[in-house]
Formats: sequence, C-alpha cells, structure tokens
Amino acid sequence: MSSYRMVDLIQKKRDGNSLEKTEINWMIENYVNGTVPDYQMSAFAMATYFKGMTTEEVADLTMAMLDSGKQIDLSDIPGIKVDKHSTGGVGDKVSIILVPLVASFGIPVAKMSGRGLGHTGGTLDKLESIPGFKVEKTIDEFKKLVSGHGLAIIGQSDDLVKADKLLYALRDVTATVDQIPLIASSIMSKKIASGADAILLDVTVGSGAFMKNIDEARKLARVMVDLGNAVGRRTMAVITNMNQPLGYAIGNRNEIAEAVEVLKGGSTLAFRKYIAELAQMMLQLAGLDKSIDEIMANFSNGKAYGKLLELIEIQGGNPLNLTAPLNTKFQVDVIADNQGYIEEMGALDIGLVAMKLGAGRATKADSIDFEAGVNLHQKIGDLVKKGDAIATLYSNREISDDLISEFKSAIVIGKVKKDYKEILEVIK
Amino acid sequence: MSSYRMVDLIQKKRDGNSLEKTEINWMIENYVNGTVPDYQMSAFAMATYFKGMTTEEVADLTMAMLDSGKQIDLSDIPGIKVDKHSTGGVGDKVSIILVPLVASFGIPVAKMSGRGLGHTGGTLDKLESIPGFKVEKTIDEFKKLVSGHGLAIIGQSDDLVKADKLLYALRDVTATVDQIPLIASSIMSKKIASGADAILLDVTVGSGAFMKNIDEARKLARVMVDLGNAVGRRTMAVITNMNQPLGYAIGNRNEIAEAVEVLKGGSTLAFRKYIAELAQMMLQLAGLDKSIDEIMANFSNGKAYGKLLELIEIQGGNPLNLTAPLNTKFQVDVIADNQGYIEEMGALDIGLVAMKLGAGRATKADSIDFEAGVNLHQKIGDLVKKGDAIATLYSNREISDDLISEFKSAIVIGKVKKDYKEILEVIK
Repeated sequence: MSSYRMVDLIQKKRDGNSLEKTEINWMIENYVNGTVPDYQMSAFAMATYFKGMTTEEVADLTMAMLDSGKQIDLSDIPGIKVDKHSTGGVGDKVSIILVPLVASFGIPVAKMSGRGLGHTGGTLDKLESIPGFKVEKTIDEFKKLVSGHGLAIIGQSDDLVKADKLLYALRDVTATVDQIPLIASSIMSKKIASGADAILLDVTVGSGAFMKNIDEARKLARVMVDLGNAVGRRTMAVITNMNQPLGYAIGNRNEIAEAVEVLKGGSTLAFRKYIAELAQMMLQLAGLDKSIDEIMANFSNGKAYGKLLELIEIQGGNPLNLTAPLNTKFQVDVIADNQGYIEEMGALDIGLVAMKLGAGRATKADSIDFEAGVNLHQKIGDLVKKGDAIATLYSNREISDDLISEFKSAIVIGKVKKDYKEILEVIK
Repeated sequence: MSSYRMVDLIQKKRDGNSLEKTEINWMIENYVNGTVPDYQMSAFAMATYFKGMTTEEVADLTMAMLDSGKQIDLSDIPGIKVDKHSTGGVGDKVSIILVPLVASFGIPVAKMSGRGLGHTGGTLDKLESIPGFKVEKTIDEFKKLVSGHGLAIIGQSDDLVKADKLLYALRDVTATVDQIPLIASSIMSKKIASGADAILLDVTVGSGAFMKNIDEARKLARVMVDLGNAVGRRTMAVITNMNQPLGYAIGNRNEIAEAVEVLKGGSTLAFRKYIAELAQMMLQLAGLDKSIDEIMANFSNGKAYGKLLELIEIQGGNPLNLTAPLNTKFQVDVIADNQGYIEEMGALDIGLVAMKLGAGRATKADSIDFEAGVNLHQKIGDLVKKGDAIATLYSNREISDDLISEFKSAIVIGKVKKDYKEILEVIK
C-alpha cells in the first residue's frame, strides 16, 4: 500500500483538488488504526465542508469506510431483503410502521436504526419505550430474526464500518456534520455493510431536517442512489418534506401509539397514504408490484398490525399498553390565540421543545423520558378557532411559559389554507 | 468568564460570522488549559482559512494569545528598544547584519528569532553555525545583554505566548499555516510579548516566501502594522521581494560569512543599500533620523562589524573563522548551458535544493549540516556566458544529477536584462 503524509492530503483537498482512491484508502485505514490523529481528520472534514468531493471520491470513501469493519451476509436468507433509512426528522415514526407493513407482504426487512440527538428523534429510542423491547442484538441473532420472522429492527453493530463510528463522533464536535460527501458515505457505508439487497432512502428536507433546501436534498439523494446501485444494491430515494413534524405525535411512547393507530387503519387518510407510498417503493425494490389500495388493505385486514406485534414479541417487548395515554406530572394545552388556518408548524422548533420536555437528548450522554413529548391536534392546512387546543405538551419537569411561547412561535395562523404534501420527489 | 461550546464557535466561523472578544478569549484560554482539544482547534483553523477574520477578531486573538504566557518588560533599559521580524525566506541573513548595524548607532536591539523549516532558513540555526554561540538564554540574561551591550539575538522563550507554540505546531500538520489571521496573530503576539517598543516587520513575498503575491503580503503587513500601533508599539513593515534568494549565500555558515562581508563594507552596493534602508527604518522607529550615507559609513568605519563581534562574544561564540570557505566532501559547480541574462532564479526551488544538500530541515526533527549550502555567483540581471559557474553546491552527501537538474530548473537564462529590487513597498 502506498504511503502518504496526511498534511499533504488535507492541503490537496483544501486547495480544491480530488483525492485518488489509494489516498482515500490510506487515509481511512490509518485513521482507524490511530496513525492519523483526530486533529488531522477534523481539518480534512472542514476542508471537504468547503471544497466538497467528486462522486468518485464519495464512492471511494464509502468503500474505504465499508472495508474498515465487517459486512453482514444475508444471502442465506431467501428473497430480496430490503432496508430503509431516513436522514432524520421530527415525529419520524415511519420505519416503525413501514417495517411491519412491508414484512406483511412476505418481503424480509432487515433494518438497523439509530438514536435521536438534538431536535431529531431516533427509532431505537422509540422502540425502547415499549417495556422489554431489546434493540441490542448480535449479527447472528439479527439474521435469525429476519430469517425466521421476516423482520427485525436493531441498533447499529459496533463491528460494522468502524471508520464511521470514529468519524461521526468527530464531526459531531467539530461542526463538520452537515455536508453531502460525509453524510452520503456515512449512510451508504452502513447500509451496504448491513447486507440488504435493496435500500429505500428517505432524505428529509426542511426546517426539521439536516438538509434545509430541496436542491441539497436532491444532490444528496442522487449521490446515494448512484452509490448504492453502483455496488449492486437496488436503491431508490424519496425526498420527504420535514417543514412540519411527521404525523401527530413527537416523542417516544406516543409515537409508538401513533404507529399502532396507523397500522390498525387509523390516523388520517393522508398519513396512511404517505406510508403506503413508501411501502410501495420498498415492495417494488423487492420485485413486488402492489397498488396503494392493495397495500392499504393490510392496514384494515390486521396483517400489518400483526407483524408489529410479532416484531415486538420476537424482540422481547410487552405489547399490552401500546396505546395508553402519556402519563406525566405536567400537561399543558397550547391554545390558539386567534382564528385561521395553520400556515406554518416549524418542525425544528417543535423538535427542540419536545427535547426540552424530556423526549430527546441535548447531548449524547442525556437520558430520555419516554412519557414526555408533544401531541399535535392540528396540522398545516387545518382551520382553528380562538381557544382551540393546537397541541398538548407532556413533561415530568415543570413546563415554563417560555417553553410554551417557544412552541407558539413555531406556529403561524393565517388566512391561507395551504396544501402540504409529505413526498416531494422520488429519485431512482 | 462566559462559557461557550467550542463546536458552536467553530460553526459560527464556518458560517462566516465574526467571533466576539469574549468568545476568542474563552477559546484560547481553554485551548491552552487543554479543555478545547486539538481536533476542535484544527477544524477552527481550517474554517478561518476559508472564512478569514475581521481586523477586530485578529486583534482580539492576538491579545488573547499574548495573555496565554508571560510578557517581557524591557522598560528598565533606557532608550527605545527596537525589534525586527521577517516572515522568512531563502538566504535571509538580514537580521544578522541589521542587528549589529542598528546597535552601532546606540539604539538597543532586542531580538528573538526562530529556526528554519522546509525551504526557509532560520536565524538561530545560522548563528549556531558559529562555534560556541548560544541562543538559549533566560529572559533575565536576555535583558542583561541588551542592557549592557545594546543587542542580543536569542531563541523564543517557552514562557511567552504559550497558545502560539501549541497552535503553530497544530497548524503545521493540518495545512492551516498560510492564512493571514493566524500568521498575523502568531507574529504579533510574540513580538508584543518580547517587549520591544518598536518593531520593523519584513513581509517577504514571492516564490520563496509564505505570501505568494503582493496583495496578500500587503494585507498581512497592514493588519500587523495596525495591530502593533494599536497596542502602543511603533510598527512599520517593508515588503521584500523573495522571488530570488536574498544575497549570494544560502545555508548557515556561508550566510554568516556573507553577513560579515556586508558588515565590513563588502558584497554588492545594491545589497548593502537594501540593508541600509531597513536600518534607516529601524532607526527612524527609534526616533533617530539618519541618511543612507551616514548608515553605510558604519560599514566602512568598522563600527557595525565591531558590534557583530561583540554580539558573538557576549553570546559565547568563537569569531576566529567566520569567513572560512565551506568545507564539505562534495562540491559541484552548476554551469550555464547558454549565454544570456539571468531572468529567473527561483527562491523556493533553490531553498529546497539547499535543504536537500543538508542545510535545512525537511521535518522539525531533522538536524542541520552547517557546512552545506549553496553559493550563488550570479543573480537576476547578470550576464552569463556558456560554461560560467552560476553557483556552487556544497554537501557532505553525494550530490545527485537530479539535484543539479532541480537547481538548474530554477534558473531561466534569456535575452532580457531584468531589474530586480528587494524592497517593493513600505507600509506605515
């Protein structure tokens, strides 16, 4: 293997040049083995923030990161195994609905998920709000669950993509997270390592997402879809609007309750349809063409909900009180000050309020209160009258007037009945 | 003192915003005490590389760095103490001539110098090529020398500007050296801490300098001059052309020999005049108006040379063989292949050749061969005939044909007799 000086590679990137595959391999290998120190890697990450990477560099980086750990081989499980990844958002319980729904059609879903940080929630935290639910599984256990039951949702294994673990922790404290090259290689190296044959990427965009505008989201989606297909994984992306929270619950246990409601054919038609469209794409990636009506049928016939109960059972959870109301010391309704249509419902601000109520983590070391959160009663486009409750805030800490004001500042009530759609674009 | 999160300060700078004085103070204080780790500081340095700093931020950073260590108080030494700093170059023995010359007019010169790295030489290394010469002195010893003899040249004290020591080492390995904000604050914090009342800054520009173009050099000079004057130090800057080496010798002991020659009134009139002009500015900063003729008189009357001998004596050096020819195992003349005027004599390339001959360090850990180096026989504007020796290379390692070719590639012989001047601009 060729040998380089890291300072030269940093300078090369800083000056806007592209790194060779051998240089990227050397860098990642030596970062993981400790030869390249964090202070050089963080300078490199800041240089890529400003100078970007070519598609080829991102592909080389992804493969170098992939090689830094183990890869899961799911090939002895029959069928096309599908996976789904969201770039994160507020109220994003989509995976918890989608995984059993897709599995209810006999397509194996092998999903590794992450935890929440800041204003974004995490699928693992939400699942852990179900008493007994275990997300820490070995790779063998994971394979057995997918093989035997057609679905599993577990935490990222430490053995996969070691470089990403190191690099992500470093980016988090050096303001180098939000950039396409390092986001794309981080996500795709993990997805490829996880072993699924097909991947649906949900790239969120808007105030509550990493990507703040559609152009950036489209670029990220394009890079990742191309990357996945280039290494033989059927990959598609959907760009999801994250300008307001997804669904009505933001928190942990209340999001499980909402997921159950949807799986039983409840919640709004619009929200069920959104989920069904995502399921349609995942099924299509697995070679199964189903209409939206056929998919929605599995809500009403109980098959999708049955798969959720099976998932909970095989991962050790207790399914008895999934839809019990939130039980916190403090509960406050947020009241509309005037009449009109809800025009804005800022996902970022609402996500931060939910975090401050106890539903999320300000730092990785914080713990989560599963009962805390926000239940929305209205969404963008809904008509409210003065005095109506727009939302209820739940917390075991006293809920200050400042926090209520913070929530209210996220809401704009006006005269325009706005259309709001979740899926903005599909990238194949 | 306010408390911040370093990641927020990095992001603020990354996004092109200015840091407050309290933020900069917090950052430097916590970097020096180890709370802010290198990997955050290097990301910050890369962000300033791309986003720069306002004049106010550079001033705040300089003062924060100054506060990270001791400051030397020279106030009990009578008179206006002057200092001089060069941003580095090839064949830059100017301080070694200038310090005794200015001191020969009764103006105390208190100078702290640095070592060479890469293609640039260092005053300390050159002085140490004089047997016995000691550059490591305590601050008390330094003050006694300046007080008793009116001059001293010593190494940077470890007690001054602790932040700079840490930050410079970090910048060196993270490709974040060549940027105005961090260069200016590094130089000026050290100069202010060194205690001189007046400072002449020599900002080199051209292939052999950090600053590659005059606009950048002018900006750096302006920032530093304003900074110095703002804190009550009389400060001027001169922009020196570093497109060819300064003078004729590039190395260590041969540069001492050339300094002696100039101080005795030898070398070329143009080079003596260049030195005299710099001396005139230093004297002017100290309140003494002298004509170039009056200054050059101290070459011919022996006063300036006498001061060099005094400097060597008080710092423990042996002055007996200052001008002995270089004595190396290998010596090769570089011969002109055709007739014409020397149009180019690339300082960077020649500096790198000198380094490879043994006269400099590729890395800080390398040792220096004081006998190795380059003696030029011609400079830009000189007429050479085919077969003339343009230069002689000296080394104790075998001198490869490749290295000779490398030297030759730095030389352009053509039909144009070019004018070359050292001083390009003066910034007050």
